[in-house]
Amino acid sequence: MSRLGEIAFIAEYLAPLATHPAALGLKDDAALLTNLPANGLVVTADALLAGAHFFEDDDPGDAAYKALATNISDLAAKAAKPLGYMLTLALAEAPTQEWARRFAGGLSRAQHQFGIALLGGDTVSARGAWWMSITAFGEASPRGLVARGGAKPGDCLYVSGTLGDAALGLELRLGRADFEQALSPESRDFLLKRYLYPEPRLALREALAHYASAAMDISDGLALDLSRMCDASQVSAQVEAASIPVSAAAGAAAAGSAGTIEIILSGGDDYEILAAVPPPHASAFEAAGKEAGVCVTKIGVVKQGPGAPVFLGRDGTALVLAAKGFEHFSK
Amino acid sequence: MSRLGEIAFIAEYLAPLATHPAALGLKDDAALLTNLPANGLVVTADALLAGAHFFEDDDPGDAAYKALATNISDLAAKAAKPLGYMLTLALAEAPTQEWARRFAGGLSRAQHQFGIALLGGDTVSARGAWWMSITAFGEASPRGLVARGGAKPGDCLYVSGTLGDAALGLELRLGRADFEQALSPESRDFLLKRYLYPEPRLALREALAHYASAAMDISDGLALDLSRMCDASQVSAQVEAASIPVSAAAGAAAAGSAGTIEIILSGGDDYEILAAVPPPHASAFEAAGKEAGVCVTKIGVVKQGPGAPVFLGRDGTALVLAAKGFEHFSK
Repeated sequence: MSRLGEIAFIAEYLAPLATHPAALGLKDDAALLTNLPANGLVVTADALLAGAHFFEDDDPGDAAYKALATNISDLAAKAAKPLGYMLTLALAEAPTQEWARRFAGGLSRAQHQFGIALLGGDTVSARGAWWMSITAFGEASPRGLVARGGAKPGDCLYVSGTLGDAALGLELRLGRADFEQALSPESRDFLLKRYLYPEPRLALREALAHYASAAMDISDGLALDLSRMCDASQVSAQVEAASIPVSAAAGAAAAGSAGTIEIILSGGDDYEILAAVPPPHASAFEAAGKEAGVCVTKIGVVKQGPGAPVFLGRDGTALVLAAKGFEHFSK
Repeated sequence: MSRLGEIAFIAEYLAPLATHPAALGLKDDAALLTNLPANGLVVTADALLAGAHFFEDDDPGDAAYKALATNISDLAAKAAKPLGYMLTLALAEAPTQEWARRFAGGLSRAQHQFGIALLGGDTVSARGAWWMSITAFGEASPRGLVARGGAKPGDCLYVSGTLGDAALGLELRLGRADFEQALSPESRDFLLKRYLYPEPRLALREALAHYASAAMDISDGLALDLSRMCDASQVSAQVEAASIPVSAAAGAAAAGSAGTIEIILSGGDDYEILAAVPPPHASAFEAAGKEAGVCVTKIGVVKQGPGAPVFLGRDGTALVLAAKGFEHFSK
């Protein structure tokens, strides 16, 4: 099978993705961003590694799509409009034409989906599994960046979409889902797809910029990410577990296994938005979500803090979670 | 030995490096760059992997210093003033306090040296050797970015500093340097240091912005990087090998082994500047280099092209190089 050298790979497969003039056609050692956004540039970075954030046998286009989507999700949560990205790609061996075609195809689909273009980057030889590190840029909204640390006691807590789907999809991929027999084939496919294809909530940008006191994307599980928002805001929170929005598929999984609620609260890879909204703005925020075509659901309230967020079960007692969420290099 | 979790590592060791207000103290999911430079933002990315760009047993502070320096070198070659950087760090296991202290210490030294600050990033679990991917930002000079593709036939070709030192240092590290016995202990140390501590030529920014028609940093060896400049500029070039500036240590190595000239021309990790300067500006460029305290040496001329650059030996015949330079994933 014919394999591509670094220079040919960049020229034939990456340069066509560099449609932004700042990229200089990938023909220089750097990009030059001019006409910079008046309200500031939002910058975020996320790396995805084979064997950690996706499976080594996943289609490289799917993995590339996910890598870009997870970065876009951070921009969306900060109410920033995607502008461009830098990509570092590490491969253990020279790519085949087929691999390169699939990889670039996934990036291309994501670029069209999210309105972003490749600006530059680096290609290196991996020692082990392949990986991507992306730094993404967005235009800040007129209010700057919707911070993680702006939540105030009394604010309503909202999440977008449904939670837990991707984490349940991961359990299926790992072959350790005791809820598998409770799922229809369609539900199974839905959960697997949610693991591979995050849906960054760019449509919520305006609503967040106008109404949210704090926002972040949920990437390491609601429990851990809400505790991060509480820490940054020096508040606490109370969530009613029963009010957390779940898909029909996740509902079926939960009906089939008592441990599923833990996965829904603590699993990662949701890439939904967590937002705190002052009560006077709550109905406007919900209406703006509806207008944007993204369901937003109130799951609880911000409390005086500091203090760990509390998740209440149906009987009004606090749930005790075994794992709080995903942290890299835990002790 | 006590090991650090991700959150403690960031709070105790990385947050103190995030001295730029855009970093928001690393307390948010993104950085917000405001007061953006009027002439544009230059963006570059370079990743360094243990076992490829440095040795696994190198001090983590040295490796971190090198990672930042190689990115700064790209900014310098584009005549951009360092502003900030994003860091993705992948570790195979939770760092010890000692490892974290050394790593952050190296970044801190580089930050002070180059006038740059950490803006944000990502920390992940590596599968295998540890690595860093950096995206660095600089303020563009009033002319924008000094391009790689602007060289014109007749331009003088200059390089900064001395070439080959780092590549010879690498040969020493790899224990395959047949010139080793020709070196004094001081020369040996000098070459080893040049491999670990690139010296980005930021002092040349003004000179490049004013006088160079094209510039890039030499990271993969003069032969390959000059051919890249020629390709981008659609020109060719002629270099007199004897005019290439070498250190006393590299000179001693060359005297001790006939193959050394090949390493000097084709080895990587120089991080010196290659610049094309129109003849009317040549003396002003040399004077500006002197003023800035960086030696610049004329090594040849740009020729009509396209065509591969030619390296002439002392007898006026073209040298034939076995390896043209370092390319990732060669076929």
